[in-house]
Amino acid sequence: MTHHQPAPRSGTTLDDYTDRYADRVRGMTASEIRALFAVASRPEVVSMAGGSPYLAALPLDAVGDMLGRIGAEQGLTALQYGIGQGTLELRERICDVMTLSGIDAACGASPEDVVVTVGGQQALDLVARLFVDPGDVVLAEGPTYVGALGVFQAAQARVVHVAMDADGLVPEALEEAIAAVTRAGRRAKFLYTIPTFQNPAGVTLSEQRRERILDICERAGLLVVEDDPYSQLSFDGDAPAPLRARRRDGVIYLSTFSKTFAPGLRVGWILAPHAVRDKLVIVSEANILCPSAFAQSAVTQYLTTMPWREQIKVYREVYRERRDTLLASLADLMPAGTSWTRPQGGLFVWATLPEGLDAKAMMPRALAARVAYVPGTGFYADGTGRNHMRLNYSYPSPELIQEGVRRLAGVMEQEIALRSLFSGASGRDGTGSGSGRRRRERTGFDAPGPDLA
Amino acid sequence: MTHHQPAPRSGTTLDDYTDRYADRVRGMTASEIRALFAVASRPEVVSMAGGSPYLAALPLDAVGDMLGRIGAEQGLTALQYGIGQGTLELRERICDVMTLSGIDAACGASPEDVVVTVGGQQALDLVARLFVDPGDVVLAEGPTYVGALGVFQAAQARVVHVAMDADGLVPEALEEAIAAVTRAGRRAKFLYTIPTFQNPAGVTLSEQRRERILDICERAGLLVVEDDPYSQLSFDGDAPAPLRARRRDGVIYLSTFSKTFAPGLRVGWILAPHAVRDKLVIVSEANILCPSAFAQSAVTQYLTTMPWREQIKVYREVYRERRDTLLASLADLMPAGTSWTRPQGGLFVWATLPEGLDAKAMMPRALAARVAYVPGTGFYADGTGRNHMRLNYSYPSPELIQEGVRRLAGVMEQEIALRSLFSGASGRDGTGSGSGRRRRERTGFDAPGPDLA
Repeated sequence: MTHHQPAPRSGTTLDDYTDRYADRVRGMTASEIRALFAVASRPEVVSMAGGSPYLAALPLDAVGDMLGRIGAEQGLTALQYGIGQGTLELRERICDVMTLSGIDAACGASPEDVVVTVGGQQALDLVARLFVDPGDVVLAEGPTYVGALGVFQAAQARVVHVAMDADGLVPEALEEAIAAVTRAGRRAKFLYTIPTFQNPAGVTLSEQRRERILDICERAGLLVVEDDPYSQLSFDGDAPAPLRARRRDGVIYLSTFSKTFAPGLRVGWILAPHAVRDKLVIVSEANILCPSAFAQSAVTQYLTTMPWREQIKVYREVYRERRDTLLASLADLMPAGTSWTRPQGGLFVWATLPEGLDAKAMMPRALAARVAYVPGTGFYADGTGRNHMRLNYSYPSPELIQEGVRRLAGVMEQEIALRSLFSGASGRDGTGSGSGRRRRERTGFDAPGPDLA
Repeated sequence: MTHHQPAPRSGTTLDDYTDRYADRVRGMTASEIRALFAVASRPEVVSMAGGSPYLAALPLDAVGDMLGRIGAEQGLTALQYGIGQGTLELRERICDVMTLSGIDAACGASPEDVVVTVGGQQALDLVARLFVDPGDVVLAEGPTYVGALGVFQAAQARVVHVAMDADGLVPEALEEAIAAVTRAGRRAKFLYTIPTFQNPAGVTLSEQRRERILDICERAGLLVVEDDPYSQLSFDGDAPAPLRARRRDGVIYLSTFSKTFAPGLRVGWILAPHAVRDKLVIVSEANILCPSAFAQSAVTQYLTTMPWREQIKVYREVYRERRDTLLASLADLMPAGTSWTRPQGGLFVWATLPEGLDAKAMMPRALAARVAYVPGTGFYADGTGRNHMRLNYSYPSPELIQEGVRRLAGVMEQEIALRSLFSGASGRDGTGSGSGRRRRERTGFDAPGPDLA
């Protein structure tokens, strides 16, 4: 084609867009994880910074065959527009998947109330768009999923973190947070929680606490948004039933196929009360019109024709071995004063550094030593978490995990030595070479309490 | 798995979610098009209500082969997470595609400034989220894309429609709208325009007017959001160059592969000034984390290994024949007093009904007569447009288009007869049987002026 193409001019009044931006984006910045991505993904770096599943465990030839047949045989529908809620076929299969966790017809789960989303991220964003006005309070575990913080920031929510320990969300801390919000004359719109194999903390809300947390929320009239991407990936027996399996009302349930099948298709879902479901579809249509018909066909076919339950077992086995390797390496190599959680499933360990170490400040030296993690600050809305880091074990091989922990321990030892040198102090128990020694582990970790100042 | 599953209880305080919704969703309702979808898609109905491409024109076997190979050979990346901006490979191919329309390196287009999106809908939603605060004014053609109205509603924007005629947006009407907004003490955040083969109006902004519209926006410091999904689908020679090909600054350009390849993959894009691009990526990450790596690989492979330029020519030929059939059928069958646009590309004809007919009120009778269209009200933010309808010719075959217009004409004749009967009036020129007669066509159509009351 030929076109009239005048020489480009530079605009006079439009060079700077800053004063045109909406309020919601003024505070939005790239996440800590994205800033790391370019460096951490260099081949020489052992990255425990990601959250990617180990896709080499998938039967890619069979998946390829399946995808090819969908294009050739179902192309007229699979490559066409679809409806905003997602196909009935996939929503029925999603109900099959949820039944495995005890979310079944008896507790009111129905394909009618499922909304298919672009991964778990859009699921969460739709819920936030539906409920959150600027300035609204959202309660969330401290630490919490970095992508949830991005959503809440975009919604201009005020995030109040609630402390966890090794048994997950602390009921007393939740009660206290609700009371503090009420005292401040506000109402929290919902509690956002990842009760099972939490990201980033790797802890699970205990069976006993699940009822208590639900009772507290029910009494306070507080909606629960349960994010459950990991519960199928349990290593040591089944995970406790999701909160949604215990309550028909008051819980909006989110999940995804990104961890049990493949994230590259971007298929997640929401199970919501009927009235809420209807609104979520309208919000989703304004956002993306409809989810990919092809990706939906792919997941539907995968769940219909392929051994998906066995594939989940394969992922479990792979990740269990890697978790074991990571925990053993940490026990062998971490300097004294370091503690970490012991996940019974999922993808992450949360480590607490010896007094005085700063995981964020240490990152450049860690990258120079060819090892990457995510500093804890990424998982708090308020900039705290510097003495923590998230370590992923799903993607790197056991050999790389061992090597990564070795490098990380070296960096930490150096930091401790440097601190001791510059402070002139005689040092605490971590000043010498701590390598190879087993140390007492703390099972819990500190999280800031509610702050509404 | 077995789980602790107490009997479901019904919540006491959480049955009603209405008072928890965010302000932005209070006015959000399903679009006119969605409400129609279930009925209009029945097999016995000739639907001219959709906007779907005719996918039977695609070589589905070859596309299936390609998709299968991506899964089998590139699965480790194509099924994995990706980066928020989209892959460099696809962004480079997108720049190739834009070069066909004159948007090339010489006018500053670069893969660095492309953001891959979930279809054109997410592209538009991201732009609105980036710029629009509640209450902000957005200028848009009247009528405009129904999905854009959904986005602007979600952003709580105030939409001010600007009139079009057969040559597209009327420059004087734009100047007047800008002045009215200024007089009201407000500033419009941007002009949203579909200059080429507009949806729903089917008109194209003339070559001469393009420079005038750009000059007006430049003088007013008004950002232009150019939505360009259809310009490759031209029937009568090349379309005028996009606005973005004429200005390096001040234009954010949106497009999609939904009309030139396949909508079921949900791949669109934004070309934005560099600073804006950076913010758009952050907003997109909060929304969907990253676009589908698989869908991106599919489009990249399609553009690299398959004859995509020839495929666009195939779509053009198919749609040109259908447009010709629709225009001929309308000329043959429409009652006197009906007028319609004559699109030189794209998917839609916009019809204006004889005085007194109401396309929205007529819909139930049209569906009973097994024909569907979209009433004009769907394309205005202010409820006007009842005397208009949008007719799609890309999806139904020429034979069905003829039959659909025949059914539609029958319904309209009945409406006219009924009106004449009940009003007792002698009727205008449309009271008799208008079938088969050629009528004078109006080339323009009315659209409401700016209303800031």
